[in-house]
Amino acid sequence: MRKENISDAVIRRLPRYYRQLTDLCNRGVVRISSHSLGQEMNITASQIRQDFSCFGEFGQQGYGYNVEELRAEIGHILGVDNNHHLIMIGVGNLGHALLQNFPFSQSGFTVDAAFDVSPAVIGTVVNNVPVYAMSELDHFLQDHPVDVVVLTIPQSVAQDTASHLINLGVKGFWNFTNIELSSQLPDVQFENIHFADSLLTLSYRIANR
Amino acid sequence: MRKENISDAVIRRLPRYYRQLTDLCNRGVVRISSHSLGQEMNITASQIRQDFSCFGEFGQQGYGYNVEELRAEIGHILGVDNNHHLIMIGVGNLGHALLQNFPFSQSGFTVDAAFDVSPAVIGTVVNNVPVYAMSELDHFLQDHPVDVVVLTIPQSVAQDTASHLINLGVKGFWNFTNIELSSQLPDVQFENIHFADSLLTLSYRIANR
Repeated sequence: MRKENISDAVIRRLPRYYRQLTDLCNRGVVRISSHSLGQEMNITASQIRQDFSCFGEFGQQGYGYNVEELRAEIGHILGVDNNHHLIMIGVGNLGHALLQNFPFSQSGFTVDAAFDVSPAVIGTVVNNVPVYAMSELDHFLQDHPVDVVVLTIPQSVAQDTASHLINLGVKGFWNFTNIELSSQLPDVQFENIHFADSLLTLSYRIANR
Repeated sequence: MRKENISDAVIRRLPRYYRQLTDLCNRGVVRISSHSLGQEMNITASQIRQDFSCFGEFGQQGYGYNVEELRAEIGHILGVDNNHHLIMIGVGNLGHALLQNFPFSQSGFTVDAAFDVSPAVIGTVVNNVPVYAMSELDHFLQDHPVDVVVLTIPQSVAQDTASHLINLGVKGFWNFTNIELSSQLPDVQFENIHFADSLLTLSYRIANR
């Protein structure tokens, strides 16, 4: 499996393929050509073949792809079978919404705990996830190493919180704070949900329709 | 200003430029070279010049870009000065989080109203936005045309609600339901926030670090 120099654009298409293939599985589709898959996703067939060739050979000439096998392969590449562990910091409206509605397990993540500073939520359990006080965070991480921390905290404390977590060994952040976080360490990953970028893209499309 | 055949990748970089330039303005930076801008954003200088050339000539050879002027130009291209109007459908945890914390006005949007089916929120006001019953929606739209509807509703009602709104003339959707919505009409725009795609991208980077 070749994995060198895979572009960001290819990597970001992988979850889309996975989502589409999951949908095809649920609809009972057994096999699909790159042409048909492309039509469903508004991507050219040659783009699909080129993307997949970064990771190996998945299809058979003239047969197409076995949907279930391809879904499993891409899921494996994405790490959905790695059983990653995750905690959330910040249980306000957004944190609550994610804990209650986002299917973390479908992406291969187990939510071990959530943390907040508010007495109103400390000690509660949201969708089977216990909410602890921030003062318990350091101790918790000693016993429960995590792969990803979800940051749903105010911007004013975002970088300090991230830096503290990086010192404690955290290497992955799912960042909802809408500010750019940084680390001196090259192996720390930040994945940002930038709501404003998305709304401005829509604004552009409306303005230039 | 040339605007034909601008790729999705270029369009999606525009909000990032706008965000970065806003940050530079706030830091008091007056001018910047494409090289320095690229370093801040992890984009090559030639990519930046190529992106901007889709929309006209913004910089001066050997001088760089005037940060405030460039920010205004890109904001204009994105439509932030168009005063778009928006309503939200679904005032659960996620809807609440967006109404309370997301700075819609900074992206050029005015939130006129929100709608829900729950008696617990109908009649309330969230961050100056009134919450009305879904039964009032059709009548409201007759008097208040909107550019964008934010969908923060359950998946089970997402497509039906979108189709109904499209029949009422709505052309833009900011879709948080995590399902693909579709329309027969070519000029209807869907912008999706796919939380799972983002988390799976992070999963990939952790698994392949």
